[in-house]
Amino acid sequence: MTDEVSFQRRYGPWALIAGGSEGIGRSFALQLASRGLHLILVARRQERLEATAQEIHERFGVQVSQHAEDLTAPDLERRLDTLVAGREIGMLVYNAGATHGAGLLLDTPLEDARKLVHLNCLGPLTAVHLLGSRMRARGRGGIILMSSMSALAGGGYVATYAATKAFDRVLAEGLWWEFGPCGVDVLGLLAGATATPAMARSTVRYDRAGTTAGQAAMQKLSITPMDPDDVAREALEHLGHGPIWIAGEQNRATAERLSRTPREEVIRLMSEASAKLHGLAPPKRADG
Amino acid sequence: MTDEVSFQRRYGPWALIAGGSEGIGRSFALQLASRGLHLILVARRQERLEATAQEIHERFGVQVSQHAEDLTAPDLERRLDTLVAGREIGMLVYNAGATHGAGLLLDTPLEDARKLVHLNCLGPLTAVHLLGSRMRARGRGGIILMSSMSALAGGGYVATYAATKAFDRVLAEGLWWEFGPCGVDVLGLLAGATATPAMARSTVRYDRAGTTAGQAAMQKLSITPMDPDDVAREALEHLGHGPIWIAGEQNRATAERLSRTPREEVIRLMSEASAKLHGLAPPKRADG
Repeated sequence: MTDEVSFQRRYGPWALIAGGSEGIGRSFALQLASRGLHLILVARRQERLEATAQEIHERFGVQVSQHAEDLTAPDLERRLDTLVAGREIGMLVYNAGATHGAGLLLDTPLEDARKLVHLNCLGPLTAVHLLGSRMRARGRGGIILMSSMSALAGGGYVATYAATKAFDRVLAEGLWWEFGPCGVDVLGLLAGATATPAMARSTVRYDRAGTTAGQAAMQKLSITPMDPDDVAREALEHLGHGPIWIAGEQNRATAERLSRTPREEVIRLMSEASAKLHGLAPPKRADG
Repeated sequence: MTDEVSFQRRYGPWALIAGGSEGIGRSFALQLASRGLHLILVARRQERLEATAQEIHERFGVQVSQHAEDLTAPDLERRLDTLVAGREIGMLVYNAGATHGAGLLLDTPLEDARKLVHLNCLGPLTAVHLLGSRMRARGRGGIILMSSMSALAGGGYVATYAATKAFDRVLAEGLWWEFGPCGVDVLGLLAGATATPAMARSTVRYDRAGTTAGQAAMQKLSITPMDPDDVAREALEHLGHGPIWIAGEQNRATAERLSRTPREEVIRLMSEASAKLHGLAPPKRADG
């Protein structure tokens, strides 16, 4: 049995990728297709979905089905069930929610924070409950949940985002323990700065001076964004070998260093990094 | 200026306690009333609320207003705004969500997990956004968000609960940084086993052999539940002195030990403790 055949038996025939049209999700899609899995891509924007789906079908010859869906919908379980349409999903990658705004909680609408919770907490719970129960019944499958280096401690300007990513990390850890004996591999993936369209949009949007200033800030902070293909490759290599993987040598070294740093200092460092990256002012009294 | 007067100026005249009818929330209510704050108690059960409200009013002479509300309601912001009715809230204690079931994610309805996210993630976000913006405008106030020792790592049987408590911890850390310069103190409180009615109900419900077996398991695990009054007292002492407080000497020692233990082992230890505490069977294939 070749590696490809055993991969397909374990994680095929279909993979569902939430947030699969661009960035890290697109890298997962390409790599899973190159290993012979058929794909169901779910994302918000029809246009980007179609371009990615067509490219993958042409390059790898696998079936690709694409669905423009809002993953924050309250009836997400029903929607996912409908679009899966009885196909056997052996792999779930929940990669949505990478795009995020930055700002003080009180300076952004409550609805933005609530949407993040729907996308990053309720979304993965729903997808795992629906598709994971079928994986458990078959005794095989793989689930990758996207977390972030932001999960390592709270931070100003990204307070809700970091909280949702801590949720994803700790959820993946618990599910790794619950699903392992059932033959289903669960991995929580902590990604740091990654060169994705979402990151480019985020720095453009929040840094009035434009992309260049965002890039300059990253250089100043000694952050070298990873290639999304490398993030996906590392995750697939480590699926089945523990609950959590931190993508990138540099990020693993940072996490190790932060784990030995007093928590208050970590929070300050993370908050100051976000301020620089997004060009945001420090908090002050509303009438100050 | 006496300590009481300065406490009232900083955190008064009203405190809103979500989940204030019993357990740790009730202890907060008693201690805040003893320091002269008027109280708005919000919880699910009208009967318990009334008993607590009456007791506090009689003992301390402060005004106590009680409201039976479901904190998982989608229109929570409007509901909270209505019941606050223009009163000046100087202190928010979000203590709801202590009660939780235990079971493998796939063996419990998705709706239970979703409710936990509403209660433990969307609830505090909503309350902080609504009441915190007024505190910031006044340049003073205090916010205590309940987290748990469960937040320290994922665990089987409580995968969603632990994830929501990691959310609360990391949210509190980010908000501590955002609110501090505005004169508003934020504290995330990590409580371990505490002798509350909710804990008694949880062990009775999930341990078929009754309370005694749950208590025996705790003894076997060397867990001595804390008195809820001590948990609340420690939190109030540490409000304004850092983002996070772990209640109890024993819990602080445990957290310190776990931080030096490999994460996979922590997850295993926590999962096995939950299994013993709730008398639950290990995970296996659905058809196994």
